[in-house]
Amino acid sequence: MDRTYRHRLERCGRIMENAGLDALLLTKPANMFYLTGDGRLCAYAIVTRGGQVALGVPATDVADVSNRAHFDEITGFADEVGMIHAINQHLRHFGVGRGTLGLEYTFLTQSMMAMVTHPHAKPESVTVADATPILSALRMVKEPAEVERIRVAAGVATKGIEAAVSKLHVGMTESQVAAEAEYAMRQAGAENFYRTYVSSGPRTNIAHGLPTARRLEDGDLLMIDVHPVVHGYSADLCRTTCLGRPTSEQAQAFDDYLLAQQATIDAIAPGVTVADLEARMHAMLRDSGHGDSIFGPPIHGVGIEFEEAPLPPDHAFFHGEKDMPAIQAGVVLSVGNCGLYAGGWGVRVEDTNVATAEGRQTLTEYPRVLTP
Amino acid sequence: MDRTYRHRLERCGRIMENAGLDALLLTKPANMFYLTGDGRLCAYAIVTRGGQVALGVPATDVADVSNRAHFDEITGFADEVGMIHAINQHLRHFGVGRGTLGLEYTFLTQSMMAMVTHPHAKPESVTVADATPILSALRMVKEPAEVERIRVAAGVATKGIEAAVSKLHVGMTESQVAAEAEYAMRQAGAENFYRTYVSSGPRTNIAHGLPTARRLEDGDLLMIDVHPVVHGYSADLCRTTCLGRPTSEQAQAFDDYLLAQQATIDAIAPGVTVADLEARMHAMLRDSGHGDSIFGPPIHGVGIEFEEAPLPPDHAFFHGEKDMPAIQAGVVLSVGNCGLYAGGWGVRVEDTNVATAEGRQTLTEYPRVLTP
Repeated sequence: MDRTYRHRLERCGRIMENAGLDALLLTKPANMFYLTGDGRLCAYAIVTRGGQVALGVPATDVADVSNRAHFDEITGFADEVGMIHAINQHLRHFGVGRGTLGLEYTFLTQSMMAMVTHPHAKPESVTVADATPILSALRMVKEPAEVERIRVAAGVATKGIEAAVSKLHVGMTESQVAAEAEYAMRQAGAENFYRTYVSSGPRTNIAHGLPTARRLEDGDLLMIDVHPVVHGYSADLCRTTCLGRPTSEQAQAFDDYLLAQQATIDAIAPGVTVADLEARMHAMLRDSGHGDSIFGPPIHGVGIEFEEAPLPPDHAFFHGEKDMPAIQAGVVLSVGNCGLYAGGWGVRVEDTNVATAEGRQTLTEYPRVLTP
Repeated sequence: MDRTYRHRLERCGRIMENAGLDALLLTKPANMFYLTGDGRLCAYAIVTRGGQVALGVPATDVADVSNRAHFDEITGFADEVGMIHAINQHLRHFGVGRGTLGLEYTFLTQSMMAMVTHPHAKPESVTVADATPILSALRMVKEPAEVERIRVAAGVATKGIEAAVSKLHVGMTESQVAAEAEYAMRQAGAENFYRTYVSSGPRTNIAHGLPTARRLEDGDLLMIDVHPVVHGYSADLCRTTCLGRPTSEQAQAFDDYLLAQQATIDAIAPGVTVADLEARMHAMLRDSGHGDSIFGPPIHGVGIEFEEAPLPPDHAFFHGEKDMPAIQAGVVLSVGNCGLYAGGWGVRVEDTNVATAEGRQTLTEYPRVLTP
């Protein structure tokens, strides 16, 4: 049995005990992957406070999961009804007939919630509670091997941005820019991606710029934001570049943004909070005259997911998170997610960093220049 | 004002009236796109029974959405608290102070549900109900222009499979196979994708084979399943191919699968139900000796989403859907989603078809052969 998972399950049990949870019923792949080594859709993991794990997976997937995952019990099911009954049998097998079952409130839809709390799944005397803060607390400080995986993903992200920027030309679509980045990242070892954002021209002003068929024009700003997944871990890297000559306003905003971003990165250290970092970055952007152009929280965690705990306190409600504790060595943070949105254009630069005992190290290494 | 959206909103109002809903609060991009012409994450649309539309979007996105969408009111918000207050103001503006508000129970997580039903968002005297069946009923029969968009997406899917198959070689990773398909699809006009599945060798036996770093070996089966998005519409195309010589068992299973798939496609006609089609395909596969290898429902709808209503009745609980009505001309169906999973390998072939007054037409045209 793998010591990594035993150790994680022991930590999980202690956090569950403090939170008064008797078992977890997980369906979010990222959480299942962390605690068992395998995470996939249409599957579940039941984890007891004592560290026992039961998996339910599609009947087709039993052999594949058995090769990858750490678990005590595994059941293959044929359909949703089978899944419901398997959950019930696993809960009874572990003696979870009363007490509190932790569920992922930031992942379960109303329909999935109805399924997992159906009386044929969850015993009626078992109550449910949100386990999101527990999983966040568990995954927030990265083990050295996790940091190394994120570093590898950061290297793949750099290759993606390099490939895309080297191919940029007037007339190319945003989607084709994404194609160059993703192709290069898959060649470099990415198994998959979280969404690749590419926006250009006036579309650099929007908050979540998924690529479209818009064709690049001379003088356009272009924003590209990539999140490869390599060996199950991600990284977050965003660059803004200009096709031609930026206006002096754009160049100034970019320079001001970089100064604020670097100062915020430099402030990462054990004991500091995400709120402290956000306040610093926003203050510097306001001081350089961009107070009206800031949108969104500048800091979030990175790991198995490209956006995970610690999450920004202002967005706590949306993500179902409570106040985040102070940063410790091993916390991985993306800095620069806010962006400046001036009206007809925007700039954003984002890098992935790890907090260390001494301060921090930036894992994403692509140059931060507006005109390459 | 665009007649397409006015017409859709009128139909929506009639369905809402039958279901006793006074307004909808939508946050699922596919539903917002259908009713307004724009769908994006971190945004909402409120739709009244009388066909009025209010949009709330990130403050950065107001100009972009205004250029694309049909609406009566639009508000930009700075954060989640702003979003909650904007929802409340729009509901009050439309006079929704009591009655029933439809929400997307198959999309809203517990946390998002808590946000949109927060007393600062939804007036306390307004009750909520699941609007999923309403949106499914609304989107199920495609307009001719929608079918043409799905046909275009089907052509792009074909280009993706062609590109991937032409590059297959021993030693290539599954992720690199996905890279070839996605690159070609973006070149051909795809703005984006739903997940590309690529599995090989023993991994062809799993139900949802996301690509990994596994390298192709001589004699491997390879399953590739693509879902490009072009002009907002998708298509579903899956092929299984063999690197080298398939075993006689594999070749027989593939041939039997094709016969069952084609017979099921041929049975598509107005008046038939998804349950009828599923029963036919499963019966043929059982009759040819593959009863133990079938996994999953063979039929689902295709449109803005690659998997949408009509959804298979066995999976109704998971998707939050009720029994689906009989097929009408204009319903677009993927046939072949079940697959045969023999143990160490699997085969699956999937095509997108439109029901017509006369019968059906297949929109995906890539050849169905095991050894190209």
